[in-house]
Amino acid sequence: MIRPASGPDGTPAPHPSVSRRAERVAPFLAMDVMAAAAAKERRGEGVVRMEVGQPSAPAPRAVIAAARAALDDGRLPYTEALGLPALRERIARHYAETYGVAVPARRVVITTGSSAGFVLAFLSLFDAGDRVAVPQPGYPAYRSILNALDLVPTPLVLRAADRYAPTGAGIRALHAAQPLSGILVMSPANPSGTVIEPERLGELCRTAQGLSLPFISDEIYHGLGYGVPTDTALRYDPDAVVINSFSKTYCMTGWRVGWMVVPDALLRPIERLAQNLYISAPYLSQVAALAAFDAVEEIEAIRLGYAANRDLLLDAFPSLGLGRMHPADGAFYLYADVSGLTNDATAFCRRMLDEAGVAATPGLDFDATEGGHHVRFSFAGSQGDCGEAIRRLRAWLL
Amino acid sequence: MIRPASGPDGTPAPHPSVSRRAERVAPFLAMDVMAAAAAKERRGEGVVRMEVGQPSAPAPRAVIAAARAALDDGRLPYTEALGLPALRERIARHYAETYGVAVPARRVVITTGSSAGFVLAFLSLFDAGDRVAVPQPGYPAYRSILNALDLVPTPLVLRAADRYAPTGAGIRALHAAQPLSGILVMSPANPSGTVIEPERLGELCRTAQGLSLPFISDEIYHGLGYGVPTDTALRYDPDAVVINSFSKTYCMTGWRVGWMVVPDALLRPIERLAQNLYISAPYLSQVAALAAFDAVEEIEAIRLGYAANRDLLLDAFPSLGLGRMHPADGAFYLYADVSGLTNDATAFCRRMLDEAGVAATPGLDFDATEGGHHVRFSFAGSQGDCGEAIRRLRAWLL
Repeated sequence: MIRPASGPDGTPAPHPSVSRRAERVAPFLAMDVMAAAAAKERRGEGVVRMEVGQPSAPAPRAVIAAARAALDDGRLPYTEALGLPALRERIARHYAETYGVAVPARRVVITTGSSAGFVLAFLSLFDAGDRVAVPQPGYPAYRSILNALDLVPTPLVLRAADRYAPTGAGIRALHAAQPLSGILVMSPANPSGTVIEPERLGELCRTAQGLSLPFISDEIYHGLGYGVPTDTALRYDPDAVVINSFSKTYCMTGWRVGWMVVPDALLRPIERLAQNLYISAPYLSQVAALAAFDAVEEIEAIRLGYAANRDLLLDAFPSLGLGRMHPADGAFYLYADVSGLTNDATAFCRRMLDEAGVAATPGLDFDATEGGHHVRFSFAGSQGDCGEAIRRLRAWLL
Repeated sequence: MIRPASGPDGTPAPHPSVSRRAERVAPFLAMDVMAAAAAKERRGEGVVRMEVGQPSAPAPRAVIAAARAALDDGRLPYTEALGLPALRERIARHYAETYGVAVPARRVVITTGSSAGFVLAFLSLFDAGDRVAVPQPGYPAYRSILNALDLVPTPLVLRAADRYAPTGAGIRALHAAQPLSGILVMSPANPSGTVIEPERLGELCRTAQGLSLPFISDEIYHGLGYGVPTDTALRYDPDAVVINSFSKTYCMTGWRVGWMVVPDALLRPIERLAQNLYISAPYLSQVAALAAFDAVEEIEAIRLGYAANRDLLLDAFPSLGLGRMHPADGAFYLYADVSGLTNDATAFCRRMLDEAGVAATPGLDFDATEGGHHVRFSFAGSQGDCGEAIRRLRAWLL
């Protein structure tokens, strides 16, 4: 923006002034809680960290060994913008092995985490003013990235009665009210832990196809399920834009490496965008990620740990007044309706961090309407963390 | 975009259709040449790689040792969106030590390479339709990122007669023709190697301040100079947005870690954008970068190597018909006017790669007007590479 020399009341305008698009981007409260929790830890105070969606386990041993070998070699250059060919091939094989779905390596794009996947998907598909349906409650960065890019996030309201799963009818109603330009869904979902059952996922893809709308499927928590089978949207719509990452299932958050599967029509536009906006994903992380899919036993042990954490919390939370929630068939979150305790979850979470030393994320991150009385607890930490959180919450709440 | 069921001539439209903003993004030709060169190497054919701006040297030993220690610890988590506090402190100290300029750590933002710095600067400062002056010839991603974000890149034409340095008069004329919303300059410059002398940099900052325009200074090649002193824009405009990175001077391209210095007014908007668009820069790279500034001797030895490469090329290029250029007082590029050899530098570079096994970047990456008869050669490789390139070019051109 061109800076006015002074504000409307004649006081000097801040220098420089901030764009309208940046003003529209809400803070990511989980990241703010994380910064507050880290500051508290630096002061020597113990915090049980349940605010941010990251595993407490390190990456699989083979991943770390691959990274170490690359460091020994020393030179960590840029890669091609679409990623190391060997990693793209390995991910293509993962689709064949895990889902029995044929994905050519050509259509796999390596990204700097799923964060870059969203930016690339949105920029390649949508123009300013386009309306994109995103789940509510849902991952807040969808809304914020769309806002930053002058797109219009349109809440696809999910209901507890539907297990927080989107419905074809919901999408059709939203599109009828004001035309959409695309649809994004996520399964397993953040924050509700909902897995969209395969039949329902097929129905959603057919709904999008019927409306000629691109379908973006965030599959970052695939591999982390507790009973309900997960399936990829690629089975039902070969032109779906799938976004995934090594961050969650493979315990590689800070490595910043993920991937997309994109239709051929988007490949070259996404390559041009990636060349200019990212150059490439981190080299070391790409080399290391090559080893991730083969660490089957380690990853399964970690999933079983989450399952045990989930059992612990599902057992203890009702007696703490935190029992109103979907029991999470995937991912590693419980999204509790805390209306019995507070209508200001943000202040509640601040006090919980200050007084109980438990960090969790206020619901307004995920839902502008109902979030004021919801809190998200991540159970990606250790079992000791979960037990300690229960003890602290019991002392604080009861 | 909403997909039409069929194209204007009745044929089925490609599925899904590509946004107009993505269509406006030109390919980054250097990255395309890089992909072609890498493919040629995978076929077992030797290529001298002068197409892409990356050092052939690995990161300093202390950087690699720090990365190894972090890997031994194992867990590489997200960091705060603005970066590890220790690294922000270390960078603040770098400004005190190197320039004698006081920069509070609070105003240092760690980014996923300078690429993220540009996205964050543009999104926080500008709204759709805003015109931003960018150097021509200049780094092509400026233009492409602005295009992707619905901003209007406005060429600030640089002239050989001015050593390819921007002038205050040039900025004022551009702003008078049609109002600008911001100005970006780069020194040392890609592709020309021009260092803007301190006095001139001060004049440019005062020009921007006089026009109330935010000043963005790309200082990624600081530390790589051959005679002309480099200075930071922060000395002349404390509110300048400075973008820098560990990629070039510290040989850390594929590590994807850089930084910005931003005025207080932009800090929180940039934090919100970074939380949502990036989460954080790679953890390992942040920890490792902590050691980069102290590797003074290694970095100086590498700079002396570039200086020797530059001498070698400046000596040999005239006899090859590649002598018309600014002799690069910084960075590690020579930008040669090849109008004596071709008017289609893109085809020329393709043939040079195919027939001579030398990869270089066609000028259209940097200059839509004059780039058709320019080629950029990077001399960031080894001295052996430079000698081999000269031998191959002599055999091919003479």
